[in-house]
Amino acid sequence: MLKAAVLGATGNVGQIFVQLLEGHPWFEVTTVAASERSTGRTYGEASRWRQTTAIPEAVAPMDVVDISPKAVKDVDIIFSALPSDVAGKMEEDFAAAGYVIVSNASAHRMDPDVPMLNPEINCSHISLIEEQRRNRKWEGAIVTNPNCSTTVLTLPLKPIYDMFGIKSVVVSTMQAISGAGYPGVASLDIIDNVIPYIGGEEPKMESETQKILGTASKPADFKVSSSCHRVPTIDGHLEAVFVETKKYADPAAVAEAMENWVGEPQELKLPSAPEKPVVVTSENNRPQTRLDRMEGKGMSTVVGRIRRDSVFDGVKFIALGHNTIRGAAGCGILNAEYLKVKKFI
Amino acid sequence: MLKAAVLGATGNVGQIFVQLLEGHPWFEVTTVAASERSTGRTYGEASRWRQTTAIPEAVAPMDVVDISPKAVKDVDIIFSALPSDVAGKMEEDFAAAGYVIVSNASAHRMDPDVPMLNPEINCSHISLIEEQRRNRKWEGAIVTNPNCSTTVLTLPLKPIYDMFGIKSVVVSTMQAISGAGYPGVASLDIIDNVIPYIGGEEPKMESETQKILGTASKPADFKVSSSCHRVPTIDGHLEAVFVETKKYADPAAVAEAMENWVGEPQELKLPSAPEKPVVVTSENNRPQTRLDRMEGKGMSTVVGRIRRDSVFDGVKFIALGHNTIRGAAGCGILNAEYLKVKKFI
Amino acid sequence: MLKAAVLGATGNVGQIFVQLLEGHPWFEVTTVAASERSTGRTYGEASRWRQTTAIPEAVAPMDVVDISPKAVKDVDIIFSALPSDVAGKMEEDFAAAGYVIVSNASAHRMDPDVPMLNPEINCSHISLIEEQRRNRKWEGAIVTNPNCSTTVLTLPLKPIYDMFGIKSVVVSTMQAISGAGYPGVASLDIIDNVIPYIGGEEPKMESETQKILGTASKPADFKVSSSCHRVPTIDGHLEAVFVETKKYADPAAVAEAMENWVGEPQELKLPSAPEKPVVVTSENNRPQTRLDRMEGKGMSTVVGRIRRDSVFDGVKFIALGHNTIRGAAGCGILNAEYLKVKKFI
Amino acid sequence: MLKAAVLGATGNVGQIFVQLLEGHPWFEVTTVAASERSTGRTYGEASRWRQTTAIPEAVAPMDVVDISPKAVKDVDIIFSALPSDVAGKMEEDFAAAGYVIVSNASAHRMDPDVPMLNPEINCSHISLIEEQRRNRKWEGAIVTNPNCSTTVLTLPLKPIYDMFGIKSVVVSTMQAISGAGYPGVASLDIIDNVIPYIGGEEPKMESETQKILGTASKPADFKVSSSCHRVPTIDGHLEAVFVETKKYADPAAVAEAMENWVGEPQELKLPSAPEKPVVVTSENNRPQTRLDRMEGKGMSTVVGRIRRDSVFDGVKFIALGHNTIRGAAGCGILNAEYLKVKKFI
Repeated sequence: MLKAAVLGATGNVGQIFVQLLEGHPWFEVTTVAASERSTGRTYGEASRWRQTTAIPEAVAPMDVVDISPKAVKDVDIIFSALPSDVAGKMEEDFAAAGYVIVSNASAHRMDPDVPMLNPEINCSHISLIEEQRRNRKWEGAIVTNPNCSTTVLTLPLKPIYDMFGIKSVVVSTMQAISGAGYPGVASLDIIDNVIPYIGGEEPKMESETQKILGTASKPADFKVSSSCHRVPTIDGHLEAVFVETKKYADPAAVAEAMENWVGEPQELKLPSAPEKPVVVTSENNRPQTRLDRMEGKGMSTVVGRIRRDSVFDGVKFIALGHNTIRGAAGCGILNAEYLKVKKFI
Repeated sequence: MLKAAVLGATGNVGQIFVQLLEGHPWFEVTTVAASERSTGRTYGEASRWRQTTAIPEAVAPMDVVDISPKAVKDVDIIFSALPSDVAGKMEEDFAAAGYVIVSNASAHRMDPDVPMLNPEINCSHISLIEEQRRNRKWEGAIVTNPNCSTTVLTLPLKPIYDMFGIKSVVVSTMQAISGAGYPGVASLDIIDNVIPYIGGEEPKMESETQKILGTASKPADFKVSSSCHRVPTIDGHLEAVFVETKKYADPAAVAEAMENWVGEPQELKLPSAPEKPVVVTSENNRPQTRLDRMEGKGMSTVVGRIRRDSVFDGVKFIALGHNTIRGAAGCGILNAEYLKVKKFI
Repeated sequence: MLKAAVLGATGNVGQIFVQLLEGHPWFEVTTVAASERSTGRTYGEASRWRQTTAIPEAVAPMDVVDISPKAVKDVDIIFSALPSDVAGKMEEDFAAAGYVIVSNASAHRMDPDVPMLNPEINCSHISLIEEQRRNRKWEGAIVTNPNCSTTVLTLPLKPIYDMFGIKSVVVSTMQAISGAGYPGVASLDIIDNVIPYIGGEEPKMESETQKILGTASKPADFKVSSSCHRVPTIDGHLEAVFVETKKYADPAAVAEAMENWVGEPQELKLPSAPEKPVVVTSENNRPQTRLDRMEGKGMSTVVGRIRRDSVFDGVKFIALGHNTIRGAAGCGILNAEYLKVKKFI
Repeated sequence: MLKAAVLGATGNVGQIFVQLLEGHPWFEVTTVAASERSTGRTYGEASRWRQTTAIPEAVAPMDVVDISPKAVKDVDIIFSALPSDVAGKMEEDFAAAGYVIVSNASAHRMDPDVPMLNPEINCSHISLIEEQRRNRKWEGAIVTNPNCSTTVLTLPLKPIYDMFGIKSVVVSTMQAISGAGYPGVASLDIIDNVIPYIGGEEPKMESETQKILGTASKPADFKVSSSCHRVPTIDGHLEAVFVETKKYADPAAVAEAMENWVGEPQELKLPSAPEKPVVVTSENNRPQTRLDRMEGKGMSTVVGRIRRDSVFDGVKFIALGHNTIRGAAGCGILNAEYLKVKKFI
């Protein structure tokens, strides 16, 4: 078993890392690190565990340690659920100390020498690690996963991109409250309400999508426009996607391309890889956030209502994915699995 | 005072008609008609009143009558909140019997000789009544208001259309449950959920928008693509709108065009006309469904986050309107006020 | 494997029966029966499956059959999720035809010769089957489980009853929408709302609690007063319970009594028996509906905030249980397991 | 017009004070005070106004000042919406400086020489002001209103207490999120959830109820036991109340007593006094939080389902009141109106 540390372990995404790693065949949480508010207490006390499954028995009694290479020692892999404002510097410190960090934070995602992996799509970007090590003169590495809403969007875009080409993408999101962490969104702000703004989300969706669907050295050249909204759902980001394609895209052919598509994680049978990265539903009122977010244990994106678009020469459809699993901790763990198989860990 | 009948008076939109007409300066509800389930009881008993204001005292004791010209007699104007599947024939019967019907039903909206008025935009379409009377050989008239989501969309589109021209519109809606009537959406289907489908809504938004922004005889020629979704809000349809314009549209200029725009209802100072059909908010996280839906007593559309679009040469923005007031009963009453001033009643 | 039929299989509780029986070690669903609306179609088509796990692959293609002993043949056990208004006669027909029916319907619960089992508490009431067979002259049997809110209440009452005695119980419920079935509660009736009335629920809670905690022949003699309310939660009934005891009841002693209590299902290690029928939490803001309803796979009641009461000489506490698992289908399956071990099947 | 200051004006209850005082016939907000975070900005900027009506135009441009007698000068009455942890000392400073403070904070409610008024019930307690001035050697005065849940409970208890006598009260609350202020309850904590704990609420309900229904010098001697819960509603506290009476209480007689009961505020026709302090509804599924919370402009308590209780010799019923209006700012304003008429201002 490889020893794993979780940074920011008491926050919402940190808890999902701890939850998903329970019983993992390759990784075992041996260290939990968090900010000063939490250190000196056990994880059970400090985390105020808020998940619907019980706190893992092995982790609950662990002492929460500082977020520093000195305090977090003797681990093989580090999962970072740090807030982006502190992640930038802290993750660099760990990489400089020789650690491989798989990060959910946005701080380094757009760095040209940092892979941002949605692994079925672009695990080849892992080659950037060598460049990163040269540039930064460290022996560790930082690997990131995309923003939650980007993760959900890019999975169904990839088979379209490969088969039909993409000229432009317009997307409106209906995002769950768990995406804002805890305490996150005030209940007075979201019950019987929609908030049509999520700070920083639209630029992220636009630039990250281009980076993921591009090559390691060059972003994809199609345009993306997004409008991001928070709705009163617990988990699961639902997105209305309009795609202008280069070649004529018949909805049935798009559905078939999505259903048949698998990536390297599926071929390698990585433990967290869902059987299908994209599941296509044919019922006219699906996917629905509450009913479909756990498809593929929360690691698949579910697509429905694929239809021709009346503005674009292309298609429109609905995509749904679990924001804290596929869109955060689950994607990070899948990335770590890939790194292990590729002997970076 | 003109005497008014409400058809389908016990349903949700019917109740909103009754609610909004309480204390109206020109119209007085003197007849309430509904299906067989309700006739023979008082309105108070039959309606199971579910609004947040008390049932109007004058209407509560009225006997509910049949939906037929024979039972509904001696009124000057008829407001129809009938379900669309029965409205088609019934409304024709009333028009044939000489009544002027202001209808919220979709049955006749797209008939070429029936005005579908969002009155600030296209009250000139009222001229179709003459054609309708010639074609149909009746002395009454049917005038409709658009679908709720179309009403909200078209108000802010109009000043853009006039000043910058429109090539295409992409819109994603986040619609409230009250739009589905009562009992409507099952709670098990919508709490902690988004339903990405509303039967018939997308085609309506696309064709109705073109009819309203066109001339009486010819729809506007821009393209519209919509994706419609139900979210867990009580009232208020929020829409993410992306517009490709013919001329360069600066967001500040678009905001100014919207704010300054008024229509004939404002000039005529009709009782239900809001001061501004479109209210522009500058806060980056507004409009919000719960906080802003009652703007202009529920008769204004609130627009925010006007920004340049990265796919289209144009702008994107958020629009919010109250679906059962501006998008249904309130728009019908405003139409009736206009008909009265124009001496059709 | 014993063959099982589910009556009313397309409704919400029927679906939970089908869901929970997937992979059951003893029972296998071989027949699904429902009303005329559904017959002639496959279960996959007719059920409009609405659970968060996928429809069991073995059941989806089955033809839905009539609810009659003629159509439902060749099964070893029948699970009834019938609506109470039709269950009375139909279940009798099946019993007369020799079947053992485990029913969630209220129709026969209060019949003196029908066991109503919350099995950790009163599985000895199974002895009533003999009386039932004598009285009714049939070879089959009807065994029921209690109302969902009663099930949640009675589990923590039992150890109090045994150790301290009970004089009276006052209980207020906060019940989930799934308890009303599908479509059940209209969303307009429950979002941002509490409905302080559930038809028939209060009398059921009062009489069923006495029957379950009594002997097979005589109800318990303490008094119960309930007030039942629907709140906007998906699953899980939370109850505020005030208990007047015969002997002095120290909260710590009550907690200990609850935690240590197990029933015959635990001793027999029945497949659906939770490790603990009652789980006591010491955090001051637990149990919470969303976080704790799946405790013991939805088969445990979680109790918290046990404290002395200032009106009664006794204690007050919070109890939470999963209404469609422990409070319906899960309890029925546990009853069937008990019947099998006792050779009634 | 009397000049009024609002302390803690930017918080949720502070905003409700500002909202309700707009257009008040006697009081005019001339000063808004808040903590350091807000001072130096206008009220419009600092308050991040979150109400469903527009921010009062006269107040929006006012500069927010410090919460000190020096900064808040030249006003006739002070409304305090301060958090309880700072209210204790600050309110004393204002009273010492000669001001009359009407406070929503809990800090001084249980002080024996401070009136806690739910004015229809106990405005005679105003006599405590003289004792307070003697004890504390100040010219000002502190007058409080009860906790929101207590306010709702005590209104319907009063006519029962007067006509039938009360031996004990058991009450379970279903309280709205706005009671926790802003940001208050995290949305992840309350959507699809019930939180069975509100810090400090149960002791307050128990002691405050006794103080209000007692004389100025002696609390009422009946016992109260409460269980307090937060549910996902925006505004409105709904309470299930069980009352043991001294004399036999017939539900119809209780309803009549409640309906006929008025207090001094009604007799004096105070501007904020509702026509009826308690409105009784006869429909079996009312009051409902969303539909009935605005009864009497949010100043009435609505009572329904009055029925005999099976545990107590007494009645049980449902009570609903608006927590931030009747239960906070509205009650404070009604108290101020009473103080003015009684010449304390």
